[in-house]
Amino acid sequence: MTSNVSYTMKKYQERLEQMLPNVFPEELSDDPTVKASLYSLLAGGKRIRPVLMYMFADLLGVDLEIIDDYAVAIEMIHTYSLIHDDLPCMDNDDLRRGKPTCHVANGENFALLAGDCLMNRAYERVLDAVKKHPETIDAAMYFATNAGILGMVGGQSIDLDSEGKKIDTGKLCELHEKKTGALINTSCLVPYLIYAAQKGKNEEVEKRIKRFSAGTGLGFQIKDDLLDVQADESVLGKTVGKDERDEKSTFVTVFGEKNAQKMLDDTYSDVFCALDELQEMGYQVRDLRQLSELLQNRIQ
Amino acid sequence: MTSNVSYTMKKYQERLEQMLPNVFPEELSDDPTVKASLYSLLAGGKRIRPVLMYMFADLLGVDLEIIDDYAVAIEMIHTYSLIHDDLPCMDNDDLRRGKPTCHVANGENFALLAGDCLMNRAYERVLDAVKKHPETIDAAMYFATNAGILGMVGGQSIDLDSEGKKIDTGKLCELHEKKTGALINTSCLVPYLIYAAQKGKNEEVEKRIKRFSAGTGLGFQIKDDLLDVQADESVLGKTVGKDERDEKSTFVTVFGEKNAQKMLDDTYSDVFCALDELQEMGYQVRDLRQLSELLQNRIQ
Repeated sequence: MTSNVSYTMKKYQERLEQMLPNVFPEELSDDPTVKASLYSLLAGGKRIRPVLMYMFADLLGVDLEIIDDYAVAIEMIHTYSLIHDDLPCMDNDDLRRGKPTCHVANGENFALLAGDCLMNRAYERVLDAVKKHPETIDAAMYFATNAGILGMVGGQSIDLDSEGKKIDTGKLCELHEKKTGALINTSCLVPYLIYAAQKGKNEEVEKRIKRFSAGTGLGFQIKDDLLDVQADESVLGKTVGKDERDEKSTFVTVFGEKNAQKMLDDTYSDVFCALDELQEMGYQVRDLRQLSELLQNRIQ
Repeated sequence: MTSNVSYTMKKYQERLEQMLPNVFPEELSDDPTVKASLYSLLAGGKRIRPVLMYMFADLLGVDLEIIDDYAVAIEMIHTYSLIHDDLPCMDNDDLRRGKPTCHVANGENFALLAGDCLMNRAYERVLDAVKKHPETIDAAMYFATNAGILGMVGGQSIDLDSEGKKIDTGKLCELHEKKTGALINTSCLVPYLIYAAQKGKNEEVEKRIKRFSAGTGLGFQIKDDLLDVQADESVLGKTVGKDERDEKSTFVTVFGEKNAQKMLDDTYSDVFCALDELQEMGYQVRDLRQLSELLQNRIQ
């Protein structure tokens, strides 16, 4: 059953992996900041954000070559956020994707700079895309807004601010809608915004994609919080049980494991419902459905 | 003699200062990352980069309203770089513009995030500008390239990598062309690139602006290095004598104070020569000439 989506995911992952080693000019290959950036950028991972971007582009008939720059850029944004998040003054994490974190391997100073380097390079790439395809400007602006203080950075800020505090359900949801959800939204909506610029808006489709992406973002975070208490550290590739130790407000520490599991199931019902509706509208959603099943049941 | 440029500088500084408090949405005013960002962004400073941008726009007849977004964005980029540079894992500085540095006042975690927030917000602003004025895309790309690993971030990387090492003159110049020069270049060239997109290229003008900006960037750094050994800490507003203590390669630690002073004078000869040539071409350079005199002789 999952063999189809595995093939599709592998295709898009490979498409991305071929581009990532070349995000910096050849003449900078000895620069220690470039090395630290590539150390983290090429450390594998599921590449969920670019995969979602390509899948929605495919669903909507958007040229994958237009997506390439945005796919690379979102993986660079995601990677910079992990590098900075792992720093001693933030989560102080030693292990990421089964490898020493960027600052453990490259020093704190170069890790900090690698994060800055990756974020800036992501926007160089986005501006390249806008130069080549001016109609993608709305997608580019959506990308930037969701990566910043109104999106991912804003979520990290709420996260830091809530450490050691009790936060209410509304704040916890806002935290995760921004911290994890914003980049997932970007992945799903960038192809739609390019589609809309090229062929005109379709609000019925937009509504379903937003519903899918909201559920996928929330589900991703609830699952992450569950894995923090359920997973095998050697499989997960990062430290387990940190959330409670760090007095983090997570879906598990706030609602308990059982309730968090129930919320995960409800969230995925919503995701599948959005896909059903897209299917009724004539869109091919098989890959997205199987991907969602994989994400719901992942063990790392 | 300097009263004219003081008036012009004040006019552009005030134009910028009026926009800076509003770079984030009102509803985020209580966010601790926004507070930390504004703490540094509103800490004063000479605003040389935006002032240069406005002066070149004025010289070339480019609408100042098109420049506004880029002026705000470059000050945000400059400010994020100072915040990250001051962090304990980098220069570990406690004092900046006469105030405690961002991490001393707001904590390391929020200072790190404030830097990320400011950089991302700068690109949100740049993309806004491209949306409103699509012809500024080349200026936007130049901006991004100069802020990243091929520019300022690249300079910081060489700087970190050269700590405690002897570096040759070529590397020292590359370091400063990138670390300080790249944003000065951006300030001078963004108005030209917008001018060129609107009215066509003028390579004779471009050459002089590049010569001016190269000299101004280099001169700015040599002067900074001289002030590190010559200035009064209470006037300078930051710690004095740190470069030698930190085993930094600067124009003073590498060439000695006297030679550095000679290099400063030679560099400014070149700056004034570029301005003379622009004047011969019919451009009004009085403000830029007086600004250069101020920069050459500044005490902070």
